[in-house]
Amino acid sequence: MDLEIITIGTELLLGFTIDTNAAHLARALASVGARVVRRTTVADRAEDIEEAVRSALSRTGFVITTGGLGPTRDDVTKRVVAEIFRRPLRLDRAYLAELEERFAKLGRKPMPEANRSQAEIPEGAVVLPNRWGTAPGLWLEGEPGTAVLLPGVPREMQGLLEHELLPRLKEKLSPFQTGLTVIRSRTLRTTGIPEAALADRIGDLEPELAPVTLAYLPGIEGVDLRLTAWNLPPEEAESVLQRAADLLRPRLGIHFYGEEGEDLAGVVLSLLKGRSCKLAVAESCTGGLLGERITAIPGSSAVFLGGVVAYSDEAKIRDLDVPRQLLVAHGAVSEPVALAMARGAARRFGAGASLAITGIAGPGGGTPEKPVGTVWLAACLDGAERTAKLSLTGERDDIRRRSAQAALNLLRKMLLGQS
Amino acid sequence: MDLEIITIGTELLLGFTIDTNAAHLARALASVGARVVRRTTVADRAEDIEEAVRSALSRTGFVITTGGLGPTRDDVTKRVVAEIFRRPLRLDRAYLAELEERFAKLGRKPMPEANRSQAEIPEGAVVLPNRWGTAPGLWLEGEPGTAVLLPGVPREMQGLLEHELLPRLKEKLSPFQTGLTVIRSRTLRTTGIPEAALADRIGDLEPELAPVTLAYLPGIEGVDLRLTAWNLPPEEAESVLQRAADLLRPRLGIHFYGEEGEDLAGVVLSLLKGRSCKLAVAESCTGGLLGERITAIPGSSAVFLGGVVAYSDEAKIRDLDVPRQLLVAHGAVSEPVALAMARGAARRFGAGASLAITGIAGPGGGTPEKPVGTVWLAACLDGAERTAKLSLTGERDDIRRRSAQAALNLLRKMLLGQS
Repeated sequence: MDLEIITIGTELLLGFTIDTNAAHLARALASVGARVVRRTTVADRAEDIEEAVRSALSRTGFVITTGGLGPTRDDVTKRVVAEIFRRPLRLDRAYLAELEERFAKLGRKPMPEANRSQAEIPEGAVVLPNRWGTAPGLWLEGEPGTAVLLPGVPREMQGLLEHELLPRLKEKLSPFQTGLTVIRSRTLRTTGIPEAALADRIGDLEPELAPVTLAYLPGIEGVDLRLTAWNLPPEEAESVLQRAADLLRPRLGIHFYGEEGEDLAGVVLSLLKGRSCKLAVAESCTGGLLGERITAIPGSSAVFLGGVVAYSDEAKIRDLDVPRQLLVAHGAVSEPVALAMARGAARRFGAGASLAITGIAGPGGGTPEKPVGTVWLAACLDGAERTAKLSLTGERDDIRRRSAQAALNLLRKMLLGQS
Repeated sequence: MDLEIITIGTELLLGFTIDTNAAHLARALASVGARVVRRTTVADRAEDIEEAVRSALSRTGFVITTGGLGPTRDDVTKRVVAEIFRRPLRLDRAYLAELEERFAKLGRKPMPEANRSQAEIPEGAVVLPNRWGTAPGLWLEGEPGTAVLLPGVPREMQGLLEHELLPRLKEKLSPFQTGLTVIRSRTLRTTGIPEAALADRIGDLEPELAPVTLAYLPGIEGVDLRLTAWNLPPEEAESVLQRAADLLRPRLGIHFYGEEGEDLAGVVLSLLKGRSCKLAVAESCTGGLLGERITAIPGSSAVFLGGVVAYSDEAKIRDLDVPRQLLVAHGAVSEPVALAMARGAARRFGAGASLAITGIAGPGGGTPEKPVGTVWLAACLDGAERTAKLSLTGERDDIRRRSAQAALNLLRKMLLGQS
């Protein structure tokens, strides 16, 4: 079943509030087989809401709105939708009594006049009780279609979605149960390979993945590949996703490191734990970001011993035993210094594995020979050593995040015995 | 000027990705007098994109799209919009050469075939150069209106918005300058005071702020107060915002630390720089997060010497000179150990100022006496010392972020001579 979502609110439209409701709704709906084909955001203006609801109904016959149900004057959704369906508003005495009782319980008596309007219900609408706030959800069915009105406050929207809307939708879709289909997805995470190179490597497989579709999601830390199975029975969706993942993974090679929700730092920690190896880090331009990422993983203390943030040359010499002559001869951003930092961290913390990062994150500090974005990495693992040079572009924050990710990946590749 | 935004991407529509671009765009546009009156999200399907762009142009004559400009097959925006404007795609040899040069510089030669299509430009379109990625932005003007195509990757979108789109819009809007009204906002940032306590402190001022409205934006690191002036000429908007900020600030006292875009770490670094004082840090549960925040500020190397991430007791003893008997007698999460860590960091790095954090971020590791969320902070500043205990709730990440913020605030208060 196809439907559209309309989120209503001037704050949303102006970008003062980020619309998290829409994403939450879409994912929940897809899981029961209702597919969102368009989302529209309009201001709290009657004309705009009316036009948006009418055209959504003309396209799919089913629309869900969020927002514009509160007691204040700018909340106009209910009135507008009632007019579209030609249903007069009637005071629902049972709901009014319930509202008054709730206000009395909170010691707020009499109930503010503004809330009284919330008990006015379009004729023939089904009330979806709102236990998390005062505006009821509404389900209207008739000419020109079906409209479900939900409040905009995220907690209220989510409560109504889970307890009222999803059960009703499941029931509505059940006559077609034999044909119930869902949208499911699965994500393969890659790092160390740009989007276009990835497309060159796997693009020819795309037709073979059908009916699963493939989307590239490039981010600072790598490219996620989202596989989606559209409108299939649940078990079939799972099995075609499994098949697609099995087809793709060998092509991704070393660049594949995990699935949705897995972080590269967690992958590295697991590999280290598997060989009872402890980790220490030495950071310059990332200033603690690498340690932060590692320790963001619960339980990291079983593997991670600690680190040194050596921003100055003196700190590199004193706390990481970097020989002064290396700094003089090669500069702080150099292969020998990165390696000395990694060795120093491993020795100092008594760690079997270590990582070091030294680079120029910008915006200042670049030179013609070592422009902003020049970063040297080094890794030690049980006596083996490896270094890598990065030439990164972007803002300071990008360069730092990409450096930390590349350092983790360098160690992961060593742990997997790959170059 | 009214316009519409269309964000394109099946991922967005399905709620796999939260649409942050739309909010960012809308705020920036409002600040130059361009008002977003509708936002639509559609899938990467040519028919849907076409219908959405056509109807947006029919309503306002000006549309901005994000997404669908990448090199992969599912990126179809450019082709669809070119068809709407009846402009054939032509290979832009200059842009192709630039792309090839950029790939060559990165040592990736030849350029992947997939990127070549990014140099195909609709006839007569203005290319908005993208320094943050490979897909250029495009500005098309003609029949049936104006369409601006931006990439969907947030960093690229933001770069193009700031450096290409906003300057062009300002220029475009200037002939109508006399009647131009804008929506402007200004943010006062606070930390160390909960939302309700803040409301008690300043709530009575709200009527006096008119026509400026006040919104409370609570976050992990404090409560931001957003002041907004609606639909006023630019100078008047600035002056009413200034007046409102001047009214509020004295009431906020020590809790106010800066305005929009200012980070507490930057404020602390400026104060330290002003007294030529250097900083070092010692972190346990935050694992590098405090150093990361400090070094995220460009130019931090002038003040920040470095830090030690001492996750284990041994590292605290060896690298921060914490006496073993303190650890035995009080445990790692204790006032004496926090203070010894701060002293150790100051001494070791030869810093006039230092900060230390030791705590239990969870989810494991809590005890009845020291539950998850127990954190001790210590600060040293030119011989003076201060400690603070936090009892935090929330997830691991929340606890770590709140701890780093509170540590910075502890030092800020010392630097300002306040308790």
